[in-house]
Amino acid sequence: MDQCAAIECLDVVEFTVIDIVNQRISAKASERLAEVMTSPACNLLNFAREVKLTKSEVTCGIQSLKQVGWRCDDRCQEFILRSDILGLSTLVTAQNTRKPDGCSESTVLGLFHVESPALYALGDDIANGALAEPCHISGAVRRLDGEPISGARIDVWPADEEGLYDVPHDSKSDALARATFIAGPNEDYCFRSIVASPYSIPHQGPGDRLLGAFGRHSWRPAHIHFLIEAVGYEPLITHVFRDDDSYLPSDAASVVCRPLIANWVRYPAGPTPDGSVSATSFCTLNFDFVLAPAAAQV
Amino acid sequence: MDQCAAIECLDVVEFTVIDIVNQRISAKASERLAEVMTSPACNLLNFAREVKLTKSEVTCGIQSLKQVGWRCDDRCQEFILRSDILGLSTLVTAQNTRKPDGCSESTVLGLFHVESPALYALGDDIANGALAEPCHISGAVRRLDGEPISGARIDVWPADEEGLYDVPHDSKSDALARATFIAGPNEDYCFRSIVASPYSIPHQGPGDRLLGAFGRHSWRPAHIHFLIEAVGYEPLITHVFRDDDSYLPSDAASVVCRPLIANWVRYPAGPTPDGSVSATSFCTLNFDFVLAPAAAQV
Repeated sequence: MDQCAAIECLDVVEFTVIDIVNQRISAKASERLAEVMTSPACNLLNFAREVKLTKSEVTCGIQSLKQVGWRCDDRCQEFILRSDILGLSTLVTAQNTRKPDGCSESTVLGLFHVESPALYALGDDIANGALAEPCHISGAVRRLDGEPISGARIDVWPADEEGLYDVPHDSKSDALARATFIAGPNEDYCFRSIVASPYSIPHQGPGDRLLGAFGRHSWRPAHIHFLIEAVGYEPLITHVFRDDDSYLPSDAASVVCRPLIANWVRYPAGPTPDGSVSATSFCTLNFDFVLAPAAAQV
Repeated sequence: MDQCAAIECLDVVEFTVIDIVNQRISAKASERLAEVMTSPACNLLNFAREVKLTKSEVTCGIQSLKQVGWRCDDRCQEFILRSDILGLSTLVTAQNTRKPDGCSESTVLGLFHVESPALYALGDDIANGALAEPCHISGAVRRLDGEPISGARIDVWPADEEGLYDVPHDSKSDALARATFIAGPNEDYCFRSIVASPYSIPHQGPGDRLLGAFGRHSWRPAHIHFLIEAVGYEPLITHVFRDDDSYLPSDAASVVCRPLIANWVRYPAGPTPDGSVSATSFCTLNFDFVLAPAAAQV
Protein backbone atom coordinates (compact mmCIF):
# COMPACT_ATOMS: atom_id res chain seq x y z
CA MET A 1 0.00 0.00 0.00
CA ASP A 2 2.93 2.41 0.42
CA GLN A 3 3.02 3.34 -3.21
CA CYS A 4 -0.71 3.98 -3.04
CA ALA A 5 -0.62 6.40 -0.15
CA ALA A 6 -1.26 9.14 -2.67
CA ILE A 7 -4.65 9.47 -4.28
CA GLU A 8 -2.97 9.35 -7.66
CA CYS A 9 -2.52 5.67 -8.06
CA LEU A 10 -2.06 3.18 -10.88
CA ASP A 11 -2.55 0.11 -8.71
CA VAL A 12 -6.20 -0.14 -7.87
CA VAL A 13 -6.54 -3.78 -6.92
CA GLU A 14 -8.51 -5.81 -4.42
CA PHE A 15 -6.36 -4.93 -1.44
CA THR A 16 -5.72 -1.27 -2.25
CA VAL A 17 -9.11 -0.08 -3.41
CA ILE A 18 -10.55 0.77 0.02
CA ASP A 19 -7.70 3.09 0.99
CA ILE A 20 -7.54 4.64 -2.45
CA VAL A 21 -11.26 5.39 -2.58
CA ASN A 22 -11.23 6.87 0.89
CA GLN A 23 -8.29 9.08 -0.01
CA ARG A 24 -9.96 10.13 -3.23
CA ILE A 25 -13.11 11.08 -1.34
CA SER A 26 -11.45 12.94 1.47
CA ALA A 27 -8.51 14.66 -0.23
CA LYS A 28 -10.41 17.71 -1.41
CA ALA A 29 -13.92 17.40 0.01
CA SER A 30 -15.09 19.73 2.78
CA GLU A 31 -14.32 18.41 6.24
CA ARG A 32 -17.93 17.44 7.00
CA LEU A 33 -18.53 15.88 3.58
CA ALA A 34 -15.37 13.85 3.95
CA GLU A 35 -16.56 12.75 7.39
CA VAL A 36 -20.03 11.75 6.27
CA MET A 37 -18.84 10.05 3.06
CA THR A 38 -15.58 8.24 3.82
CA SER A 39 -17.03 6.33 6.72
CA PRO A 40 -19.98 4.84 4.78
CA ALA A 41 -17.79 4.20 1.74
CA CYS A 42 -15.26 2.44 3.94
CA ASN A 43 -18.02 0.53 5.74
CA LEU A 44 -19.55 -0.47 2.42
CA LEU A 45 -16.27 -1.77 1.06
CA ASN A 46 -15.24 -3.52 4.27
CA PHE A 47 -18.64 -5.13 4.40
CA ALA A 48 -18.38 -6.24 0.75
CA ARG A 49 -15.05 -7.82 1.62
CA GLU A 50 -16.22 -9.44 4.87
CA VAL A 51 -19.21 -11.18 3.32
CA LYS A 52 -17.43 -11.67 -0.02
CA LEU A 53 -20.28 -9.96 -1.81
CA THR A 54 -20.88 -11.42 -5.26
CA LYS A 55 -21.50 -9.58 -8.51
CA SER A 56 -25.06 -10.87 -8.66
CA GLU A 57 -25.71 -9.62 -5.13
CA VAL A 58 -24.43 -6.18 -6.11
CA THR A 59 -26.65 -6.30 -9.19
CA CYS A 60 -29.58 -7.31 -7.01
CA GLY A 61 -28.86 -4.46 -4.58
CA ILE A 62 -28.56 -1.95 -7.41
CA GLN A 63 -31.77 -3.21 -8.96
CA SER A 64 -33.47 -2.83 -5.59
CA LEU A 65 -32.21 0.75 -5.19
CA LYS A 66 -33.40 1.55 -8.73
CA GLN A 67 -36.85 0.27 -7.86
CA VAL A 68 -36.85 2.35 -4.70
CA GLY A 69 -35.91 5.39 -6.78
CA TRP A 70 -38.53 4.73 -9.41
CA ARG A 71 -41.22 4.52 -6.74
CA CYS A 72 -40.29 7.89 -5.27
CA ASP A 73 -42.48 10.86 -6.03
CA ASP A 74 -44.10 13.62 -4.02
CA ARG A 75 -46.51 11.14 -2.49
CA CYS A 76 -44.40 8.03 -2.12
CA GLN A 77 -41.05 8.45 -0.41
CA GLU A 78 -39.63 4.95 -0.57
CA PHE A 79 -36.13 6.08 0.43
CA ILE A 80 -37.51 7.66 3.60
CA LEU A 81 -39.35 4.41 4.15
CA ARG A 82 -36.11 2.50 3.78
CA SER A 83 -34.51 4.82 6.32
CA ASP A 84 -37.46 4.09 8.62
CA ILE A 85 -37.24 0.32 8.13
CA LEU A 86 -33.50 0.32 8.82
CA GLY A 87 -33.92 2.39 11.98
CA LEU A 88 -31.93 5.33 10.61
CA SER A 89 -34.85 7.74 10.96
CA THR A 90 -35.39 6.83 14.59
CA LEU A 91 -31.70 7.02 15.47
CA VAL A 92 -31.14 10.36 13.76
CA THR A 93 -34.31 11.80 15.28
CA ALA A 94 -33.32 10.64 18.73
CA GLN A 95 -29.75 11.84 18.66
CA ASN A 96 -30.76 15.25 17.35
CA THR A 97 -33.57 15.77 19.85
CA ARG A 98 -31.93 14.76 23.11
CA LYS A 99 -33.59 16.57 25.96
CA PRO A 100 -33.93 16.51 29.72
CA ASP A 101 -35.71 13.59 31.39
CA GLY A 102 -39.39 14.22 31.72
CA CYS A 103 -39.83 15.81 28.29
CA SER A 104 -42.03 14.05 25.75
CA GLU A 105 -40.21 11.67 23.40
CA SER A 106 -39.69 12.73 19.80
CA THR A 107 -40.33 10.45 16.82
CA VAL A 108 -39.95 10.59 13.06
CA LEU A 109 -42.23 12.96 11.18
CA GLY A 110 -43.47 10.19 8.92
CA LEU A 111 -44.43 10.44 5.28
CA PHE A 112 -47.81 12.11 5.55
CA HIS A 113 -47.22 15.46 7.19
CA VAL A 114 -48.69 18.46 5.38
CA GLU A 115 -47.47 22.00 6.00
CA SER A 116 -50.00 24.41 7.53
CA PRO A 117 -53.23 22.45 7.71
CA ALA A 118 -56.44 24.41 8.31
CA LEU A 119 -56.73 26.13 11.69
CA TYR A 120 -59.61 24.91 13.84
CA ALA A 121 -61.01 26.18 17.14
CA LEU A 122 -60.50 24.07 20.25
CA GLY A 123 -63.39 21.67 20.62
CA ASP A 124 -64.08 21.45 16.87
CA ASP A 125 -64.79 18.19 15.07
CA ILE A 126 -62.05 17.84 12.48
CA ALA A 127 -63.00 14.40 11.13
CA ASN A 128 -64.68 15.85 8.04
CA GLY A 129 -66.12 12.44 7.25
CA ALA A 130 -62.90 10.45 7.80
CA LEU A 131 -63.84 6.81 8.20
CA ALA A 132 -63.38 5.62 11.80
CA GLU A 133 -64.99 5.62 15.18
CA PRO A 134 -65.18 9.12 16.72
CA CYS A 135 -62.55 10.02 19.26
CA HIS A 136 -62.52 12.91 21.73
CA ILE A 137 -58.89 13.91 22.21
CA SER A 138 -57.65 16.25 24.89
CA GLY A 139 -54.67 17.05 27.04
CA ALA A 140 -52.22 19.71 28.04
CA VAL A 141 -48.94 21.19 26.83
CA ARG A 142 -46.62 21.92 29.74
CA ARG A 143 -43.11 22.89 30.73
CA LEU A 144 -40.81 20.52 32.53
CA ASP A 145 -41.80 22.11 35.86
CA GLY A 146 -45.46 21.43 35.15
CA GLU A 147 -46.37 25.02 34.40
CA PRO A 148 -48.65 25.55 31.39
CA ILE A 149 -47.37 26.67 28.01
CA SER A 150 -50.14 28.76 26.57
CA GLY A 151 -50.62 29.33 22.88
CA ALA A 152 -48.76 26.27 21.61
CA ARG A 153 -49.51 25.46 17.98
CA ILE A 154 -50.61 21.84 17.58
CA ASP A 155 -50.84 19.92 14.27
CA VAL A 156 -52.49 16.49 14.29
CA TRP A 157 -52.95 13.79 11.66
CA PRO A 158 -53.98 10.10 12.06
CA ALA A 159 -54.74 7.28 9.58
CA ASP A 160 -58.40 6.26 9.17
CA GLU A 161 -59.93 2.82 9.66
CA GLU A 162 -58.85 1.83 6.14
CA GLY A 163 -55.27 2.60 7.10
CA LEU A 164 -55.19 5.69 4.90
CA TYR A 165 -54.12 9.25 5.52
CA ASP A 166 -55.98 11.93 3.65
CA VAL A 167 -53.03 13.09 1.58
CA PRO A 168 -52.85 10.28 -0.96
CA HIS A 169 -56.61 10.59 -1.63
CA ASP A 170 -56.84 12.21 -5.02
CA SER A 171 -60.59 12.33 -5.02
CA LYS A 172 -60.95 14.21 -1.77
CA SER A 173 -60.08 17.86 -1.66
CA ASP A 174 -60.70 18.51 2.02
CA ALA A 175 -58.30 17.52 4.74
CA LEU A 176 -59.70 14.67 6.83
CA ALA A 177 -58.90 14.51 10.54
CA ARG A 178 -55.99 16.87 9.89
CA ALA A 179 -55.91 20.25 11.60
CA THR A 180 -53.99 22.89 13.47
CA PHE A 181 -55.06 24.17 16.88
CA ILE A 182 -53.73 26.81 19.19
CA ALA A 183 -53.70 25.56 22.77
CA GLY A 184 -55.65 27.62 25.28
CA PRO A 185 -54.21 30.07 27.78
CA ASN A 186 -54.14 27.32 30.36
CA GLU A 187 -52.19 24.88 28.21
CA ASP A 188 -55.20 22.72 27.37
CA TYR A 189 -56.22 21.40 24.02
CA CYS A 190 -59.25 19.37 22.97
CA PHE A 191 -60.85 18.37 19.71
CA ARG A 192 -62.99 15.67 18.19
CA SER A 193 -61.45 13.48 15.53
CA ILE A 194 -61.25 9.74 14.82
CA VAL A 195 -59.66 6.71 16.40
CA ALA A 196 -56.32 6.11 14.69
CA SER A 197 -55.91 2.79 12.87
CA PRO A 198 -52.89 0.69 11.90
CA TYR A 199 -51.69 1.04 8.34
CA SER A 200 -49.41 -0.82 6.01
CA ILE A 201 -46.57 0.71 4.09
CA PRO A 202 -47.34 0.58 0.34
CA HIS A 203 -48.12 -2.99 -0.74
CA GLN A 204 -45.93 -4.43 -3.49
CA GLY A 205 -43.46 -1.59 -3.10
CA PRO A 206 -39.73 -2.21 -2.56
CA GLY A 207 -40.03 -1.49 1.19
CA ASP A 208 -42.83 -4.01 1.50
CA ARG A 209 -40.77 -6.58 -0.41
CA LEU A 210 -37.72 -5.92 1.76
CA LEU A 211 -39.74 -6.46 4.93
CA GLY A 212 -41.17 -9.62 3.35
CA ALA A 213 -37.65 -10.90 2.69
CA PHE A 214 -36.89 -10.29 6.37
CA GLY A 215 -39.98 -12.34 7.26
CA ARG A 216 -41.59 -9.23 8.71
CA HIS A 217 -45.03 -7.72 8.19
CA SER A 218 -45.48 -4.26 6.71
CA TRP A 219 -47.72 -2.74 9.36
CA ARG A 220 -47.31 0.25 11.58
CA PRO A 221 -49.29 0.22 14.83
CA ALA A 222 -52.14 2.73 15.11
CA HIS A 223 -51.06 6.22 16.14
CA ILE A 224 -51.92 9.85 15.82
CA HIS A 225 -49.15 12.27 14.89
CA PHE A 226 -48.60 15.49 16.84
CA LEU A 227 -46.35 18.38 15.90
CA ILE A 228 -46.26 20.97 18.67
CA GLU A 229 -44.48 24.29 18.46
CA ALA A 230 -44.26 27.11 21.00
CA VAL A 231 -41.98 30.13 21.21
CA GLY A 232 -39.05 29.42 23.50
CA TYR A 233 -39.36 25.62 23.24
CA GLU A 234 -37.96 22.93 21.01
CA PRO A 235 -40.55 21.77 18.48
CA LEU A 236 -41.94 18.36 19.39
CA ILE A 237 -42.69 15.88 16.61
CA THR A 238 -44.18 12.71 17.98
CA HIS A 239 -46.71 9.86 17.76
CA VAL A 240 -49.28 8.74 20.34
CA PHE A 241 -49.89 5.00 19.98
CA ARG A 242 -52.86 2.84 21.04
CA ASP A 243 -52.06 0.36 23.79
CA ASP A 244 -54.45 -2.25 22.34
CA ASP A 245 -52.57 -2.59 19.04
CA SER A 246 -50.96 -5.95 18.32
CA TYR A 247 -48.42 -4.35 15.97
CA LEU A 248 -46.84 -2.26 18.75
CA PRO A 249 -43.94 -4.67 19.43
CA SER A 250 -43.13 -5.19 15.75
CA ASP A 251 -43.64 -1.77 14.14
CA ALA A 252 -42.38 -1.91 10.53
CA ALA A 253 -40.69 1.45 11.09
CA SER A 254 -39.21 0.70 14.55
CA VAL A 255 -40.53 3.85 16.23
CA VAL A 256 -42.48 2.66 19.29
CA CYS A 257 -41.37 3.61 22.78
CA ARG A 258 -43.41 3.11 25.94
CA PRO A 259 -43.96 6.73 27.02
CA LEU A 260 -45.88 7.30 23.78
CA ILE A 261 -48.30 4.41 24.26
CA ALA A 262 -51.64 5.56 25.65
CA ASN A 263 -54.96 4.08 26.66
CA TRP A 264 -57.63 5.07 24.17
CA VAL A 265 -60.77 4.41 26.24
CA ARG A 266 -63.83 3.03 24.42
CA TYR A 267 -67.37 4.03 25.48
CA PRO A 268 -70.76 2.86 24.28
CA ALA A 269 -73.18 5.26 22.59
CA GLY A 270 -74.18 7.99 24.99
CA PRO A 271 -72.89 11.20 26.54
CA THR A 272 -69.45 12.39 25.39
CA PRO A 273 -66.85 14.59 27.07
CA ASP A 274 -67.93 17.65 25.08
CA GLY A 275 -71.50 17.43 26.38
CA SER A 276 -73.00 16.01 23.20
CA VAL A 277 -74.60 12.58 22.93
CA SER A 278 -73.04 10.09 20.54
CA ALA A 279 -75.33 7.71 18.65
CA THR A 280 -72.40 5.33 18.21
CA SER A 281 -69.65 4.01 20.40
CA PHE A 282 -66.67 6.35 20.67
CA CYS A 283 -63.26 6.70 22.28
CA THR A 284 -61.45 9.21 24.37
CA LEU A 285 -57.73 9.91 24.50
CA ASN A 286 -56.15 12.14 27.07
CA PHE A 287 -52.46 12.83 26.60
CA ASP A 288 -50.20 15.52 28.02
CA PHE A 289 -47.03 16.77 26.40
CA VAL A 290 -43.95 18.29 28.02
CA LEU A 291 -41.80 20.51 25.80
CA ALA A 292 -38.08 21.04 26.23
CA PRO A 293 -36.89 24.63 26.49
CA ALA A 294 -35.18 25.82 23.31
CA ALA A 295 -31.52 24.86 22.99
CA ALA A 296 -31.84 22.47 25.92
CA GLN A 297 -30.69 19.57 23.79
CA VAL A 298 -28.10 17.52 25.62
CA MET B 1 -30.90 -3.54 26.47
CA ASP B 2 -31.82 -6.79 28.24
CA GLN B 3 -35.51 -6.26 27.85
CA CYS B 4 -34.91 -5.60 24.15
CA ALA B 5 -33.06 -8.79 23.42
CA ALA B 6 -36.18 -9.99 21.69
CA ILE B 7 -37.23 -8.50 18.38
CA GLU B 8 -40.60 -7.72 19.89
CA CYS B 9 -39.80 -4.56 21.71
CA LEU B 10 -41.65 -1.52 23.00
CA ASP B 11 -38.52 0.47 23.79
CA VAL B 12 -37.04 1.64 20.52
CA VAL B 13 -34.87 4.54 21.62
CA GLU B 14 -31.54 6.03 20.63
CA PHE B 15 -29.44 3.42 22.39
CA THR B 16 -31.52 0.35 21.56
CA VAL B 17 -32.44 0.92 17.94
CA ILE B 18 -29.31 -0.62 16.38
CA ASP B 19 -29.68 -3.94 18.18
CA ILE B 20 -33.41 -4.03 17.63
CA VAL B 21 -33.16 -3.37 13.90
CA ASN B 22 -30.45 -5.96 13.48
CA GLN B 23 -32.51 -8.52 15.34
CA ARG B 24 -35.58 -7.64 13.29
CA ILE B 25 -33.64 -8.10 10.06
CA SER B 26 -31.94 -11.33 10.98
CA ALA B 27 -34.59 -13.16 13.00
CA LYS B 28 -36.40 -14.69 10.04
CA ALA B 29 -34.39 -13.76 6.95
CA SER B 30 -32.43 -16.41 5.07
CA GLU B 31 -28.91 -16.84 6.40
CA ARG B 32 -27.27 -15.07 3.46
CA LEU B 33 -29.80 -12.23 3.38
CA ALA B 34 -29.30 -11.70 7.10
CA GLU B 35 -25.54 -11.65 6.52
CA VAL B 36 -25.65 -9.18 3.64
CA MET B 37 -28.25 -6.92 5.30
CA THR B 38 -27.49 -6.75 9.01
CA SER B 39 -23.90 -5.69 8.50
CA PRO B 40 -24.71 -2.67 6.27
CA ALA B 41 -27.67 -1.73 8.44
CA CYS B 42 -25.46 -1.91 11.51
CA ASN B 43 -22.69 0.00 9.74
CA LEU B 44 -25.15 2.64 8.59
CA LEU B 45 -26.52 3.15 12.07
CA ASN B 46 -23.14 3.09 13.79
CA PHE B 47 -21.90 5.60 11.26
CA ALA B 48 -24.94 7.83 11.82
CA ARG B 49 -24.15 7.73 15.52
CA GLU B 50 -20.41 8.31 15.15
CA VAL B 51 -20.75 11.39 12.98
CA LYS B 52 -23.97 12.46 14.74
CA LEU B 53 -25.73 12.65 11.41
CA THR B 54 -28.33 15.41 11.31
CA LYS B 55 -31.85 15.26 9.94
CA SER B 56 -30.95 17.64 7.14
CA GLU B 57 -28.01 15.46 6.16
CA VAL B 58 -30.29 12.42 6.01
CA THR B 59 -32.74 14.45 3.92
CA CYS B 60 -29.89 15.51 1.66
CA GLY B 61 -28.72 11.90 1.29
CA ILE B 62 -32.23 10.69 0.55
CA GLN B 63 -32.70 13.46 -2.00
CA SER B 64 -29.44 12.44 -3.62
CA LEU B 65 -30.49 8.78 -3.80
CA LYS B 66 -33.82 9.83 -5.30
CA GLN B 67 -32.02 11.78 -7.99
CA VAL B 68 -29.78 8.78 -8.69
CA GLY B 69 -32.90 6.64 -9.02
CA TRP B 70 -34.67 9.08 -11.28
CA ARG B 71 -31.67 9.17 -13.61
CA CYS B 72 -31.63 5.40 -13.98
CA ASP B 73 -32.98 3.88 -17.16
CA ASP B 74 -31.79 1.29 -19.64
CA ARG B 75 -29.12 3.67 -20.88
CA CYS B 76 -28.06 5.47 -17.75
CA GLN B 77 -27.19 3.33 -14.76
CA GLU B 78 -26.39 5.91 -12.13
CA PHE B 79 -26.45 3.37 -9.28
CA ILE B 80 -23.82 1.28 -11.06
CA LEU B 81 -21.89 4.50 -11.52
CA ARG B 82 -22.12 5.19 -7.80
CA SER B 83 -20.83 1.67 -7.13
CA ASP B 84 -17.96 2.43 -9.53
CA ILE B 85 -17.16 5.79 -7.90
CA LEU B 86 -17.16 4.26 -4.43
CA GLY B 87 -14.87 1.42 -5.51
CA LEU B 88 -17.47 -1.27 -4.81
CA SER B 89 -17.49 -2.48 -8.42
CA THR B 90 -13.71 -2.92 -8.48
CA LEU B 91 -13.59 -4.64 -5.10
CA VAL B 92 -16.41 -7.06 -5.88
CA THR B 93 -14.97 -7.81 -9.32
CA ALA B 94 -11.55 -8.46 -7.87
CA GLN B 95 -12.64 -10.67 -5.01
CA ASN B 96 -14.85 -12.75 -7.27
CA THR B 97 -12.24 -13.22 -10.00
CA ARG B 98 -9.17 -14.14 -7.99
CA LYS B 99 -6.87 -16.24 -10.14
CA PRO B 100 -3.33 -17.53 -10.33
CA ASP B 101 -0.47 -15.04 -10.82
CA GLY B 102 0.24 -14.47 -14.46
CA CYS B 103 -3.40 -14.37 -15.56
CA SER B 104 -4.77 -11.15 -17.01
CA GLU B 105 -6.43 -8.83 -14.51
CA SER B 106 -10.21 -8.52 -14.53
CA THR B 107 -12.07 -5.23 -14.34
CA VAL B 108 -15.64 -4.02 -14.15
CA LEU B 109 -17.82 -4.58 -17.21
CA GLY B 110 -18.76 -0.91 -17.38
CA LEU B 111 -22.05 0.59 -18.46
CA PHE B 112 -21.79 0.17 -22.22
CA HIS B 113 -21.54 -3.54 -22.87
CA VAL B 114 -23.99 -4.94 -25.44
CA GLU B 115 -24.85 -8.62 -25.61
CA SER B 116 -23.85 -10.42 -28.82
CA PRO B 117 -22.44 -7.71 -31.05
CA ALA B 118 -22.05 -8.56 -34.77
CA LEU B 119 -19.47 -11.24 -35.58
CA TYR B 120 -16.58 -10.04 -37.72
CA ALA B 121 -13.73 -11.91 -39.40
CA LEU B 122 -10.22 -11.46 -38.04
CA GLY B 123 -8.57 -8.56 -39.81
CA ASP B 124 -11.82 -6.70 -40.48
CA ASP B 125 -12.24 -2.99 -39.96
CA ILE B 126 -14.99 -2.62 -37.36
CA ALA B 127 -14.89 1.19 -36.99
CA ASN B 128 -17.95 1.70 -39.20
CA GLY B 129 -17.26 5.39 -39.25
CA ALA B 130 -16.61 5.81 -35.52
CA LEU B 131 -14.83 9.13 -35.00
CA ALA B 132 -11.20 8.61 -34.03
CA GLU B 133 -7.77 7.87 -35.43
CA PRO B 134 -7.54 4.33 -36.87
CA CYS B 135 -5.93 1.69 -34.70
CA HIS B 136 -4.64 -1.75 -35.68
CA ILE B 137 -5.18 -4.00 -32.68
CA SER B 138 -3.70 -7.45 -32.34
CA GLY B 139 -2.50 -9.97 -29.81
CA ALA B 140 -2.91 -13.46 -28.51
CA VAL B 141 -5.08 -15.38 -26.07
CA ARG B 142 -3.04 -17.90 -24.12
CA ARG B 143 -3.04 -20.31 -21.20
CA LEU B 144 -0.94 -19.74 -18.12
CA ASP B 145 1.74 -22.05 -19.53
CA GLY B 146 1.94 -19.95 -22.69
CA GLU B 147 0.16 -22.45 -24.92
CA PRO B 148 -2.42 -20.97 -27.31
CA ILE B 149 -6.14 -21.07 -26.64
CA SER B 150 -7.72 -21.40 -30.04
CA GLY B 151 -11.26 -20.32 -30.80
CA ALA B 152 -11.68 -17.82 -27.97
CA ARG B 153 -14.62 -15.49 -28.45
CA ILE B 154 -13.57 -11.85 -28.12
CA ASP B 155 -15.93 -8.86 -27.70
CA VAL B 156 -14.46 -5.35 -27.96
CA TRP B 157 -15.88 -1.86 -27.43
CA PRO B 158 -14.07 1.51 -27.00
CA ALA B 159 -15.27 5.13 -26.71
CA ASP B 160 -14.67 7.39 -29.72
CA GLU B 161 -12.78 10.69 -29.84
CA GLU B 162 -15.87 12.53 -28.57
CA GLY B 163 -15.85 10.28 -25.53
CA LEU B 164 -18.96 8.43 -26.67
CA TYR B 165 -19.79 4.77 -26.99
CA ASP B 166 -22.12 3.80 -29.79
CA VAL B 167 -24.93 2.61 -27.53
CA PRO B 168 -26.33 5.92 -26.37
CA HIS B 169 -26.44 7.17 -30.01
CA ASP B 170 -30.09 7.16 -30.93
CA SER B 171 -29.50 8.31 -34.45
CA LYS B 172 -27.08 5.57 -35.41
CA SER B 173 -28.39 2.10 -35.97
CA ASP B 174 -25.10 0.36 -36.68
CA ALA B 175 -22.65 -0.65 -34.01
CA LEU B 176 -19.51 1.48 -34.15
CA ALA B 177 -16.16 -0.06 -33.26
CA ARG B 178 -18.08 -2.81 -31.45
CA ALA B 179 -17.66 -6.41 -32.61
CA THR B 180 -17.17 -10.05 -31.75
CA PHE B 181 -14.26 -12.09 -33.14
CA ILE B 182 -13.28 -15.70 -32.85
CA ALA B 183 -9.53 -16.01 -32.24
CA GLY B 184 -7.60 -18.04 -34.77
CA PRO B 185 -6.38 -21.61 -34.28
CA ASN B 186 -3.07 -20.26 -33.12
CA GLU B 187 -4.52 -18.00 -30.44
CA ASP B 188 -4.07 -14.80 -32.44
CA TYR B 189 -6.53 -12.03 -32.97
CA CYS B 190 -6.30 -8.88 -35.04
CA PHE B 191 -8.70 -6.22 -36.25
CA ARG B 192 -8.81 -2.61 -37.26
CA SER B 193 -10.76 -0.23 -35.07
CA ILE B 194 -10.17 3.19 -33.51
CA VAL B 195 -7.94 4.67 -30.85
CA ALA B 196 -9.88 4.71 -27.57
CA SER B 197 -10.49 8.13 -26.01
CA PRO B 198 -11.18 9.29 -22.45
CA TYR B 199 -14.78 9.96 -21.58
CA SER B 200 -16.67 11.68 -18.82
CA ILE B 201 -19.46 10.14 -16.83
CA PRO B 202 -22.76 11.94 -17.59
CA HIS B 203 -22.40 15.68 -17.00
CA GLN B 204 -24.81 17.23 -14.51
CA GLY B 205 -25.84 13.80 -13.28
CA PRO B 206 -25.76 12.88 -9.59
CA GLY B 207 -22.50 10.93 -10.02
CA ASP B 208 -20.87 13.93 -11.65
CA ARG B 209 -22.11 16.16 -8.83
CA LEU B 210 -20.85 13.74 -6.19
CA LEU B 211 -17.39 13.69 -7.76
CA GLY B 212 -17.52 17.48 -7.94
CA ALA B 213 -18.29 17.65 -4.23
CA PHE B 214 -15.22 15.47 -3.64
CA GLY B 215 -13.17 17.95 -5.69
CA ARG B 216 -12.63 15.26 -8.33
CA HIS B 217 -13.04 15.31 -12.09
CA SER B 218 -15.52 13.04 -13.85
CA TRP B 219 -13.21 11.49 -16.44
CA ARG B 220 -12.25 7.93 -17.13
CA PRO B 221 -8.91 7.38 -18.86
CA ALA B 222 -9.03 6.07 -22.43
CA HIS B 223 -9.47 2.31 -22.71
CA ILE B 224 -10.86 -0.41 -24.88
CA HIS B 225 -13.01 -3.08 -23.25
CA PHE B 226 -12.41 -6.78 -23.89
CA LEU B 227 -14.65 -9.66 -22.91
CA ILE B 228 -12.99 -12.98 -23.73
CA GLU B 229 -14.63 -16.37 -23.34
CA ALA B 230 -13.29 -19.82 -24.12
CA VAL B 231 -14.52 -23.27 -23.14
CA GLY B 232 -12.64 -24.52 -20.10
CA TYR B 233 -11.51 -21.07 -18.96
CA GLU B 234 -12.89 -18.36 -16.72
CA PRO B 235 -14.39 -15.51 -18.73
CA LEU B 236 -12.15 -12.46 -18.73
CA ILE B 237 -13.74 -9.02 -18.58
CA THR B 238 -11.14 -6.30 -18.73
CA HIS B 239 -9.95 -2.91 -19.99
CA VAL B 240 -6.74 -2.06 -21.87
CA PHE B 241 -5.68 1.51 -21.06
CA ARG B 242 -3.46 3.97 -22.97
CA ASP B 243 -0.22 4.77 -21.21
CA ASP B 244 -0.27 8.38 -22.46
CA ASP B 245 -3.51 9.30 -20.70
CA SER B 246 -3.28 11.93 -17.98
CA TYR B 247 -6.43 10.60 -16.30
CA LEU B 248 -4.84 7.19 -15.53
CA PRO B 249 -3.89 8.04 -11.92
CA SER B 250 -7.24 9.62 -11.08
CA ASP B 251 -9.80 7.45 -12.88
CA ALA B 252 -13.31 8.53 -11.77
CA ALA B 253 -14.22 4.85 -11.46
CA SER B 254 -11.02 3.68 -9.70
CA VAL B 255 -10.33 0.78 -12.06
CA VAL B 256 -6.76 1.29 -13.33
CA CYS B 257 -4.04 -1.24 -12.56
CA ARG B 258 -0.61 -1.33 -14.17
CA PRO B 259 -0.77 -4.67 -16.01
CA LEU B 260 -3.63 -3.29 -18.09
CA ILE B 261 -1.79 -0.16 -19.24
CA ALA B 262 -0.35 -0.55 -22.72
CA ASN B 263 1.65 1.45 -25.20
CA TRP B 264 -0.54 2.44 -28.12
CA VAL B 265 2.13 3.27 -30.75
CA ARG B 266 1.45 6.19 -33.11
CA TYR B 267 2.67 6.11 -36.74
CA PRO B 268 2.55 8.70 -39.50
CA ALA B 269 0.57 8.09 -42.69
CA GLY B 270 2.02 5.15 -44.58
CA PRO B 271 2.11 1.36 -44.53
CA THR B 272 0.06 -0.39 -41.83
CA PRO B 273 0.41 -3.80 -40.16
CA ASP B 274 -2.31 -5.31 -42.38
CA GLY B 275 -0.44 -4.43 -45.60
CA SER B 276 -2.63 -1.48 -46.52
CA VAL B 277 -1.42 2.12 -46.75
CA SER B 278 -3.02 4.66 -44.42
CA ALA B 279 -3.57 8.20 -45.69
CA THR B 280 -3.63 9.43 -42.11
CA SER B 281 -1.61 8.82 -38.99
CA PHE B 282 -2.69 5.70 -37.11
CA CYS B 283 -1.89 3.65 -34.02
CA THR B 284 -1.13 0.07 -33.22
CA LEU B 285 -1.88 -1.82 -30.04
CA ASN B 286 -0.52 -5.27 -29.33
CA PHE B 287 -1.82 -6.91 -26.18
CA ASP B 288 -1.81 -10.54 -25.07
CA PHE B 289 -4.28 -12.06 -22.65
CA VAL B 290 -3.82 -15.03 -20.32
CA LEU B 291 -7.00 -16.81 -19.23
CA ALA B 292 -7.40 -18.68 -15.96
CA PRO B 293 -8.59 -22.27 -16.19
CA ALA B 294 -12.23 -22.67 -15.16
CA ALA B 295 -12.81 -22.94 -11.42
CA ALA B 296 -9.22 -21.93 -10.74
CA GLN B 297 -10.37 -19.00 -8.66
CA VAL B 298 -8.42 -18.82 -5.43
